[in-house]
Amino acid sequence: MRLVTYRATVEAPARLGVIEGESVVDVEALGIAFGEDFPASMLELIDLGPDGLAALKRLLDEARGAWPVRTTVPLANVRLLAPIPRPRKNIFGIGLNYVEHVEESSRTLDTSKDLPKEPVIFSKPPMAVVGPDDPIEHNASITQQLDWEVELAAIIGRKATKVSEEDALSYVFGYSVMIDVSARDNRRAGQWIYSKGQDSFAPFGPCIVTADEVGDPHDLDLWLTVNGERKQGSNTKHMLFKIPTLISDISAAITLDPGDIIATGTPEGVGAGRDPQEWLWPGDVVEACVEGIGTIRHPVVAVGNDFSRQRKAG
Amino acid sequence: MRLVTYRATVEAPARLGVIEGESVVDVEALGIAFGEDFPASMLELIDLGPDGLAALKRLLDEARGAWPVRTTVPLANVRLLAPIPRPRKNIFGIGLNYVEHVEESSRTLDTSKDLPKEPVIFSKPPMAVVGPDDPIEHNASITQQLDWEVELAAIIGRKATKVSEEDALSYVFGYSVMIDVSARDNRRAGQWIYSKGQDSFAPFGPCIVTADEVGDPHDLDLWLTVNGERKQGSNTKHMLFKIPTLISDISAAITLDPGDIIATGTPEGVGAGRDPQEWLWPGDVVEACVEGIGTIRHPVVAVGNDFSRQRKAG
Repeated sequence: MRLVTYRATVEAPARLGVIEGESVVDVEALGIAFGEDFPASMLELIDLGPDGLAALKRLLDEARGAWPVRTTVPLANVRLLAPIPRPRKNIFGIGLNYVEHVEESSRTLDTSKDLPKEPVIFSKPPMAVVGPDDPIEHNASITQQLDWEVELAAIIGRKATKVSEEDALSYVFGYSVMIDVSARDNRRAGQWIYSKGQDSFAPFGPCIVTADEVGDPHDLDLWLTVNGERKQGSNTKHMLFKIPTLISDISAAITLDPGDIIATGTPEGVGAGRDPQEWLWPGDVVEACVEGIGTIRHPVVAVGNDFSRQRKAG
Repeated sequence: MRLVTYRATVEAPARLGVIEGESVVDVEALGIAFGEDFPASMLELIDLGPDGLAALKRLLDEARGAWPVRTTVPLANVRLLAPIPRPRKNIFGIGLNYVEHVEESSRTLDTSKDLPKEPVIFSKPPMAVVGPDDPIEHNASITQQLDWEVELAAIIGRKATKVSEEDALSYVFGYSVMIDVSARDNRRAGQWIYSKGQDSFAPFGPCIVTADEVGDPHDLDLWLTVNGERKQGSNTKHMLFKIPTLISDISAAITLDPGDIIATGTPEGVGAGRDPQEWLWPGDVVEACVEGIGTIRHPVVAVGNDFSRQRKAG
């Protein structure tokens, strides 16, 4: 199942949909047509747990081929939003989780060249999320080193506390694509939240593909282009700490909730690791794709100066 | 105004109250008694903005001295919860924000001895929050270096984007006390979220004192004891980056929302900085106080082993 959050028109409220061929099926509307109660938002669906998803699957199977009137809109006519437009808490990011990226980071950033022995966890605030086609903000008064990182995002399906690696994948609701935008010159005492947590620094979408449909999450190609030129290209099999380890490790100390997002790290090919280094600038267009999930495309736009940083220039 | 979130009985729902002398006045119930609509939760009150707070102040002034029946309960009889039991997003923490603490950290942790040139921002997940008297969890399979940090917490009152230092304090709703519990041996590639973001690592309370009543937030004594022995004692005037700078700096890149919490950093005297080093263990009791706000007291309790860490021991 390919789940989206969408607006049918610019002014319409955000709604939960399922992509079926060239259409978006509205989940709540389809439920009403069949006298069943289904939610209008992704987080509410996730909160229903595996039973909710199974019920939705049955409903879709029943309706497919003869969608009731007013339950579908052409995919080409809707605006897709981030699948979870406003996560309930911080996004968990995983740093240095592809071997070659550890190497390139150690050459050009301040990280070790040794492979991490445990997952390197950081966080991005929920406000950083933007949806497909939304701009990535470039504030030249704050950064001159805006960088890209394509990542597979895992969405947690149910409350996870002290979960074993063996059980961990059963806690995954589905998968999506996230770009971990990073202002490399905004690290502070090594901490990454300011460099990775700025508004618009978590492009997310275009959909959440449910775990059953993704199959093995560690056999997916992923790539990123800037202005059509391929910068990153790898496969999720090269992750150092795989998703079961990440969920088990985080949940050992930090309870994960339904709808929580883990951005699982980026492969080599980021701008900081290139020779010469390359950065994003206003006018650039970034495209990121994970096989079987989809592609998100984001323009980089200049945002104005602001009060607070003027004191630094002054 | 001293605002609390409380339960009148163990089973009762969490409610918003105001401490008046030895009583808690229930905000929603008082509103009903006067035919006015007031919320039952702290976040809803904060969302009403300055007008909501002013209206509540007028109502309290009108009712004081003759509280209607069923609008008050004795403070001694209620259970106080964290003022915001579940923040909407990550808590923003500020590292290395008192000069002497920068020095002690550089001696014993992996931080620089130079004063930071910009605020060092990290984050704690909202799930880390616990309320007064709740246990701080000690999981011996994860940490042998559990440490304390008393901090003044600033609660944001309205959406803040690119706020100037001059305007910044007008965005503060009020102040509270937070302990930034830290598992020093859980830093990973220098990132602090795993070491500072574990469940129960953000004791918070006992109340939020509104900004008008606190006056100057940079003239408050703060201290912390372990088993009654004073470990930290300083004054918020020693903060390196003051609250206006923190709000301006964060909001330059990361939008702050109503109810967001900034833990403003800890003074010297943490366990890692002592000679010999000292850590928290099950059975210990930690008390933390900020002048004019109040004291929170938390036992340290052992929590059991768990699946995920057994693979490390094995």
